[in-house]
Amino acid sequence: MRTSYAVGVDVGGTRVAAGLVERKGRIVKEVRTLTPRDAGPFAIVDAIIELIEDVSSGVHPSEIAGIGVGLPAQIDFLKQSVEFCTNLPLNGVDMRSLIMSRVRHSVTIDNDSNCAGIGESRFGAGKKARDFVMITLGTGVGGSLFFNGEPYRGSRGLAAEIGHMVVDLDGPPCPCGGTGHLESFVGRPALAARGREAARTFRAHTLREAAGGDAEQITAEHVIEAALAGDEDARKILLEAGEVLGRALVGVVNLLNPRLVIVGGGVGESCGFLVERAAEMVDAEALAGRRDVRVVQAELGNDAGMLGAAALAFDEHDSREGIQR
Amino acid sequence: MRTSYAVGVDVGGTRVAAGLVERKGRIVKEVRTLTPRDAGPFAIVDAIIELIEDVSSGVHPSEIAGIGVGLPAQIDFLKQSVEFCTNLPLNGVDMRSLIMSRVRHSVTIDNDSNCAGIGESRFGAGKKARDFVMITLGTGVGGSLFFNGEPYRGSRGLAAEIGHMVVDLDGPPCPCGGTGHLESFVGRPALAARGREAARTFRAHTLREAAGGDAEQITAEHVIEAALAGDEDARKILLEAGEVLGRALVGVVNLLNPRLVIVGGGVGESCGFLVERAAEMVDAEALAGRRDVRVVQAELGNDAGMLGAAALAFDEHDSREGIQR
Repeated sequence: MRTSYAVGVDVGGTRVAAGLVERKGRIVKEVRTLTPRDAGPFAIVDAIIELIEDVSSGVHPSEIAGIGVGLPAQIDFLKQSVEFCTNLPLNGVDMRSLIMSRVRHSVTIDNDSNCAGIGESRFGAGKKARDFVMITLGTGVGGSLFFNGEPYRGSRGLAAEIGHMVVDLDGPPCPCGGTGHLESFVGRPALAARGREAARTFRAHTLREAAGGDAEQITAEHVIEAALAGDEDARKILLEAGEVLGRALVGVVNLLNPRLVIVGGGVGESCGFLVERAAEMVDAEALAGRRDVRVVQAELGNDAGMLGAAALAFDEHDSREGIQR
Repeated sequence: MRTSYAVGVDVGGTRVAAGLVERKGRIVKEVRTLTPRDAGPFAIVDAIIELIEDVSSGVHPSEIAGIGVGLPAQIDFLKQSVEFCTNLPLNGVDMRSLIMSRVRHSVTIDNDSNCAGIGESRFGAGKKARDFVMITLGTGVGGSLFFNGEPYRGSRGLAAEIGHMVVDLDGPPCPCGGTGHLESFVGRPALAARGREAARTFRAHTLREAAGGDAEQITAEHVIEAALAGDEDARKILLEAGEVLGRALVGVVNLLNPRLVIVGGGVGESCGFLVERAAEMVDAEALAGRRDVRVVQAELGNDAGMLGAAALAFDEHDSREGIQR
């Protein structure tokens, strides 16, 4: 039976979102709540269940293919187990069984970055690409890899940490403990630090004003906001970040020869000119034959993870029922 | 019918080698000749045919599964066509048909780096690994990628150019036109340049002597030779190259989460301590959970490509005959 809906859940460090999603990716209903960060795993499960019940209320259970859940954790996808989670107390918690015991549907879990990639792959910027790389620029810099039309997870489900590629041998320390990693140049903390520096050293009026006049309060969002409002110093910071991103992508493109690179995440989605600068670098420096790769912004914004999770649920249902995609 | 042998041919810029190979990877007979570089594609085909006839003489054709040929070229594996070749005049030449028209066997072509990776995967250091990266250190720095037990070629068959990942934003120019690429730190020309510099600046007796007393004649091989003979300056050059290689591999390991990294090529195979230094860097800097990756030397030396080409021929035969591997 071809069901009409799946529920996609996107669990983040700050918020949990759930959506009732049609097969073609239309979100019929969407709800969000704050992540109960400090009350243990059961509180998180409670929050997830509440959102699932909310979005699926009024829909007959037989119309729902299943539930997909994206988690900010290292997932063993084949075992459907949470291996490791730094931001939430989910280490080794059997989230799939906990959720499944309280809903009438099958549950599939995956890493949140993979869900975002699957979302863009089915419904967004990656629709026609079999081989692509998604990179998410935010506080951290992560991503997902798609080879031959499928997510590639690596030998232990830990692949796609694009932010932790070395791009500079003598570069600054990275939050992970390494040095010179991409994230230490383009993550939000790095952009904010560059913004504070500029507001101290240069004029950067707009930038300082964006932070209420106090240079020390400047965040990455202030830098982006000021750049979009025309502040040249802020714009320069983001263009330089785009250059470093581009240089890292030269390596990724030479290594993986993807058809497409999708740049998402809060920073990637709000900064078209940063992504364009990265695309220019790739075009200038990638090896011959690889320059047909397109570097584009993600299309689905915050919904990517939820849509990808729902797509996983449809897939799981269809493969169980022997329906070809 | 399970045939006993395949012929593997490895076409390099300098030499062509062919071997009669048993299913388990034993080379029964092996012949080599200089590559006729400047006499056009037909001379290269002639050389290949001559070697094939030589190694297979005395064996009944029915005992030979087929012929695999590794070429130093960009290959579209599905189309079995040569797309691009920089070192030999094979651009757009239909090598497979040219060879097949003159032998009684099916012919399969692939890129030489992929063949070396397939060789190590079946008979060498990668025997039990489904997800591994092979890197070849030589004049150029290349490699191959194996995901889920199969070579990964990228969207256009151009993947695995590991030498052309950016590891230093302000690094030296790379022969490819980029800057700060891994190859510009660890390729033979870079090692030789460092060796000449050391022989001019420091004492580096052994190193200068290795080159017949003339610092300007020092090659990468002289640096390796001197290091193995105990020259500290030469050893330092190679250890530093190992560190840069290691930093690049940190990125590869974080990006792809392989189980294994195999370091081959002339430099990788002769310099165990360089590979060990790289392994130490990976162990110190890769993200948690990925440090179980092993970084090892290749095991098959110059035979890897020939053995991989033969394995391709067995595979092609077996899939045609419906035999499971």
